Amino acid sequence: MRKIDLNADLGEGFGPWAMGDDAAMLDVVTSANIACGGHAGDPEVMHDTLRTAAARGVVVGAHPGYPDREGFGRRVIPMTPDAIIRMVAAQIGALAGVAALAGVPLRYVKAHGALANLAADRAEVATAIATAVAAQPGRLALLAISGTELEVQGRKAGLPVVAEVFADRAYQADGRLVPRGQPGAVLHDADQAAARMLRFVETGKMPVLGGGEIALQAGSICVHGDSPDAVAMARAVRSTLEKAGVTLCPFAGG
Amino acid sequence: MRKIDLNADLGEGFGPWAMGDDAAMLDVVTSANIACGGHAGDPEVMHDTLRTAAARGVVVGAHPGYPDREGFGRRVIPMTPDAIIRMVAAQIGALAGVAALAGVPLRYVKAHGALANLAADRAEVATAIATAVAAQPGRLALLAISGTELEVQGRKAGLPVVAEVFADRAYQADGRLVPRGQPGAVLHDADQAAARMLRFVETGKMPVLGGGEIALQAGSICVHGDSPDAVAMARAVRSTLEKAGVTLCPFAGG
Amino acid sequence: MRKIDLNADLGEGFGPWAMGDDAAMLDVVTSANIACGGHAGDPEVMHDTLRTAAARGVVVGAHPGYPDREGFGRRVIPMTPDAIIRMVAAQIGALAGVAALAGVPLRYVKAHGALANLAADRAEVATAIATAVAAQPGRLALLAISGTELEVQGRKAGLPVVAEVFADRAYQADGRLVPRGQPGAVLHDADQAAARMLRFVETGKMPVLGGGEIALQAGSICVHGDSPDAVAMARAVRSTLEKAGVTLCPFAGG
Amino acid sequence: MRKIDLNADLGEGFGPWAMGDDAAMLDVVTSANIACGGHAGDPEVMHDTLRTAAARGVVVGAHPGYPDREGFGRRVIPMTPDAIIRMVAAQIGALAGVAALAGVPLRYVKAHGALANLAADRAEVATAIATAVAAQPGRLALLAISGTELEVQGRKAGLPVVAEVFADRAYQADGRLVPRGQPGAVLHDADQAAARMLRFVETGKMPVLGGGEIALQAGSICVHGDSPDAVAMARAVRSTLEKAGVTLCPFAGG
Repeated sequence: MRKIDLNADLGEGFGPWAMGDDAAMLDVVTSANIACGGHAGDPEVMHDTLRTAAARGVVVGAHPGYPDREGFGRRVIPMTPDAIIRMVAAQIGALAGVAALAGVPLRYVKAHGALANLAADRAEVATAIATAVAAQPGRLALLAISGTELEVQGRKAGLPVVAEVFADRAYQADGRLVPRGQPGAVLHDADQAAARMLRFVETGKMPVLGGGEIALQAGSICVHGDSPDAVAMARAVRSTLEKAGVTLCPFAGG
Repeated sequence: MRKIDLNADLGEGFGPWAMGDDAAMLDVVTSANIACGGHAGDPEVMHDTLRTAAARGVVVGAHPGYPDREGFGRRVIPMTPDAIIRMVAAQIGALAGVAALAGVPLRYVKAHGALANLAADRAEVATAIATAVAAQPGRLALLAISGTELEVQGRKAGLPVVAEVFADRAYQADGRLVPRGQPGAVLHDADQAAARMLRFVETGKMPVLGGGEIALQAGSICVHGDSPDAVAMARAVRSTLEKAGVTLCPFAGG
Repeated sequence: MRKIDLNADLGEGFGPWAMGDDAAMLDVVTSANIACGGHAGDPEVMHDTLRTAAARGVVVGAHPGYPDREGFGRRVIPMTPDAIIRMVAAQIGALAGVAALAGVPLRYVKAHGALANLAADRAEVATAIATAVAAQPGRLALLAISGTELEVQGRKAGLPVVAEVFADRAYQADGRLVPRGQPGAVLHDADQAAARMLRFVETGKMPVLGGGEIALQAGSICVHGDSPDAVAMARAVRSTLEKAGVTLCPFAGG
Repeated sequence: MRKIDLNADLGEGFGPWAMGDDAAMLDVVTSANIACGGHAGDPEVMHDTLRTAAARGVVVGAHPGYPDREGFGRRVIPMTPDAIIRMVAAQIGALAGVAALAGVPLRYVKAHGALANLAADRAEVATAIATAVAAQPGRLALLAISGTELEVQGRKAGLPVVAEVFADRAYQADGRLVPRGQPGAVLHDADQAAARMLRFVETGKMPVLGGGEIALQAGSICVHGDSPDAVAMARAVRSTLEKAGVTLCPFAGG
């Protein structure tokens, strides 16, 4: 594995409010997960982000989340799987409508926050998301957290599925993320995170918190951009990979 | 002119709230203008309305409006033309995303409320709407109030444009609607409204408030369904036209 | 017990949408639980409902719910107890601000939907609501479902607490409501519901689904008004109680 | 005039999004205009801002605006004066409900953005705001832009009214602000702005764009805090005034 994608959640502002430094991140990533007006985003933010991404050759995907701006999509809003299908379809469609204006093709979908977490564990939620994606035109891919139900159900639904790992999160021996509340769950040292990602790209093995490592399959690395420190880490990951001769390129379309 | 379309605004509920009797209206109309989550509607309402319309052979279009549920899209929200383009595109896209799920093709777009009224008079607003429509896939038609800037700009943009007249509204000598505040602006008698529509379909002439008549071009009649009286009027219009041998059929697609 | 209060959830419209027949219900009830802009309501609806209630001598209380109009407050939105305190305080305050305009004093608070259900079982949620209520001026009472944690924690917080029973819901042997999904959970016969309520008021005993009865304490009966059938049931309850000589009067203020 | 108030708009975040550096500004100002959930703010943001303000001895007021987060209250939402009265009352009430929790008294009201601008010119809008304020408990003061209809109508309504000038805005010969679009409308040099404010406090005269000066009455200076430059300017104003022996103190309550 000498090439990989770098993705980040972008376009997560709303009205007068910005979230992170999208302009900086769009110089780092190869794929941009763009909020669709559910947990964040509005038509203006979508359009700006799509245009800027396209101008820099960054591939774009839809990033649907629970329709809960106040909670930023981090709270599970109780919904039936059928209601999730429709909600996700409407959000992908909203972004697609703006993307059609901007002349930028959507290539993939990545679920956000609490929706992604639920879809990681629950087959019916994962299937709901996959169903919504499969119904859209353009044969969209699904970007799923490595080793989750969403990855499994996405493949079952016949979608092109690519798995992602997180640059700044520690892993357990079962390949799952260490839950955020636990000590060591989040990495704060940019160089350490970058070195781990390089090793993962070169060996396919991810260090496990507490020792040892585990084999993971992933075609993309997720980096965050919602703080100056996060941008620095994203840059470190990119720089470390490039210096080692790894090619950074979009996993989809492009 | 021995055939015409009947359209109505439908899917204008939100969450727990319904607006009018959509089930009854979908037995009357040939085209359904479905709210897109801006002034009304949500993914569940969109899906229900799309499915019911399709089951009855009613052609569906998108009905975008100002993103203002509290004001039901009846208030002008100050927006630049560029912001209107993006807002309309996002709304059409949201409905298209749900329509893809339901397997129902969108065929046209009709603007709602204050947005439609502004687009009737202002070329830059009309052009904004036409631009948003033209960018969407599927060669969507534009349903515009007869004689408005929206009709003009829609044609300039190369869209298939169909004009509509209102079953329950009085007309002025210049072909424009009598403003709602004025006496006689709204017709309340179902039989009278139905008779006027029949005469219009047969002659292409619309009675003018105060006397006389004016020639209008229209391929669709707009009926309302947001009250029991309105449903009764819609039924009367359909029944009167059918008895006179006029064919009711969708103006678009189907 | 020869007197009792009748309460209903009112003011649950939003923007262009109405919920139930508030005008009819305000002729039936003695206390109106008015939505505060969270699950339903807006400043116009609040004001109209407050004014109409006051004109008919109906006492008013605040009816806060999860800030989730799309779900009508029937979904649990994950929030910390502290966040619930602030959310409930803001909602009571919003209604109080409009009530000050209308010259109508708020007398009590009743939680809505999923918030009320959670507060029935979880002490920390019940305490959160009680804390928010206790902090407001005017020594507001708390109207709580009979036998719940909310009743218990409300008393612990030193609030005046009144319990309510439901006219159209079946009870279990432990005094709790039969959950909605179960057969027989909801009564549909107005006369039967009215007869049960009369018997309860006269004896303090509530029939139990499956046989027998249980002693309950309650100072108010909750009736629904969100459908024509519901209004008919509310009228039947009032009429049956009045004919038997029971006095209907507000539990609070007056 | 050897003492004056410094006010700023604060608590203008929403959910995950922050606006400006409230913590820094609460070390600079003597009065905090706190958003009420209309154009910005939510119960959590309100509570945090109220607590922080109180901890630093900053007096707090309500800062209602059009209920339009996407437009940040900078767009005129068409509303009747009666609807404005109710909307403003609900927003003041929401903040008052949270303030009751925090044990912090609200002392005044200042309108935000497009609502304030409209109230500056239109007597009926100004009267609507004054009416909403006058109905609330606690004899709230009104903080109005110097020389506006809001100042006039507030006094007519019997409210305690204090006028404000802007540290970073140029004035016309008629005492009105130079409209934002015009050259020179906004001052960017912190030292220049501070020097002007000192001179105004000492003489009651405000420089006029293009030359000359005009006498203005004001008990408060409005500073902005929504950018690092804005915070620096606010600090410069405070520092310059204090060094010159001017006392900075809240205009209300305290």
